[in-house]
Amino acid sequence: MTETIAGYGYGTAGRSPVTMKDLEELRASVLFGPEDEKALRLAGDVLEDQVEDVLDVWYGFVGANPHLLASFSTPGGQPVGEYLDRVRARFGQWILDTCRRPYDRQWLDYQHEMGRRHTSLGKNRADAADAASHVPMRHVIALIYPITATVRPFLERKGHAPEQVEAMFQAWFKSVVLQIALWTRAYADVREW
Amino acid sequence: MTETIAGYGYGTAGRSPVTMKDLEELRASVLFGPEDEKALRLAGDVLEDQVEDVLDVWYGFVGANPHLLASFSTPGGQPVGEYLDRVRARFGQWILDTCRRPYDRQWLDYQHEMGRRHTSLGKNRADAADAASHVPMRHVIALIYPITATVRPFLERKGHAPEQVEAMFQAWFKSVVLQIALWTRAYADVREW
Ligand code: HEM
Ligand code: HEM
Repeated sequence: MTETIAGYGYGTAGRSPVTMKDLEELRASVLFGPEDEKALRLAGDVLEDQVEDVLDVWYGFVGANPHLLASFSTPGGQPVGEYLDRVRARFGQWILDTCRRPYDRQWLDYQHEMGRRHTSLGKNRADAADAASHVPMRHVIALIYPITATVRPFLERKGHAPEQVEAMFQAWFKSVVLQIALWTRAYADVREW
Repeated sequence: MTETIAGYGYGTAGRSPVTMKDLEELRASVLFGPEDEKALRLAGDVLEDQVEDVLDVWYGFVGANPHLLASFSTPGGQPVGEYLDRVRARFGQWILDTCRRPYDRQWLDYQHEMGRRHTSLGKNRADAADAASHVPMRHVIALIYPITATVRPFLERKGHAPEQVEAMFQAWFKSVVLQIALWTRAYADVREW
């Protein structure tokens, strides 16, 4: 399936400058452990056939916020439809990767690549898009909130016990925070990352 | 009360380079609205006499994680007791400020000052401490998770209805994400903040 996603580069990204030790420390900071891995596997099963619905919510949110839509638009302010569509497919795959991939060296490398794709070093390349040069870092950090909070109702939708829903939600929250901390490494020249 | 907190500088900080328009956009990104302000006021009342208990949890967490304790330690690795104590008092005040202060220009200015105090431009100054030069930005972002999640049980402790607890929790979560997005502006040379 992954081969059919335009521009998706899991497994072929360059090496991230982030070390496995950095990753371990960040895992400790967000209290990410084996229970969270298990909960994310379950979340993957729960979300699998709801991916398009989750993306509808997120894209609706981006579309409703001019300061966010700007990142998918030309410098002149025209939203780039094909770019939005292509990124959407990768975003869907990311939901499943977040739940199912082992957080190993390969995962770490693609984390860095996803970070780069939000900065002027990597944005627009995968899709030959003529959109804004970069996504401001502050907006990436701020989106931790909606990307986390909006997932909860979808986790509740498959009849799991409240404790299971809670475990899936906490694991998702931890993983999003962990990933965004990693992505900011790609922003030029954060000297004290 | 605020005068008795060593090094606390609310109202006397320099001007933040962040604009009120930037702030508005970030508020929109985390869906922060008037309902959240109300919920935070309530959270202030709920947390007021539990501040020391919350700080015990957070300081316990920092103490248990060498990569975090390092920020409160000399470059040689000695934790600096007086520094830990003085910062703790400001941290307690921050809990109440998060709940009770209007998020206006003065608040924005102190946001930037708090950010600076985690970087080599501002760290150690308020306390003339000989501790590590800066808190790595990735760790500040990662702590969004524990600083958010650990507050929930304290919000539950005063007999409020589940919807009220949920509203307080969501508002707290939004505010922490918003503030950390603001703080990263102080990190030297984030060109694409
Ligand atoms: C929690 C925060 C965010 C998450 C989890 C996230 C997730 C993603 C993912 C998974 C991709 C596709 C990566 C790939 O190519 O495989 C992506 C790309 C993209 N995101 Fe984000 N994103 C976040 C914040 C933002 C924000 C705030 C914006 C601004 C609107 C944004 C705009 C974009 C754009 C324009 C791309 C395409 C980049 C390219 O040219 O390849 N993202 N994002
Ligand atoms: C969500 C993340 C964080 C929040 C909300 C937070 C909150 C605070 C607050 C409120 C203060 C006092 C500000 C003032 O002077 O009025 C402070 C200072 C400090 N924090 Fe953080 N912090 C965060 C992350 C971290 C991390 C990851 C570390 C690493 C251990 C850390 C270490 C410190 C240190 C060393 C100071 C003293 C700075 C100085 O020299 O003035 N913080 N923090």
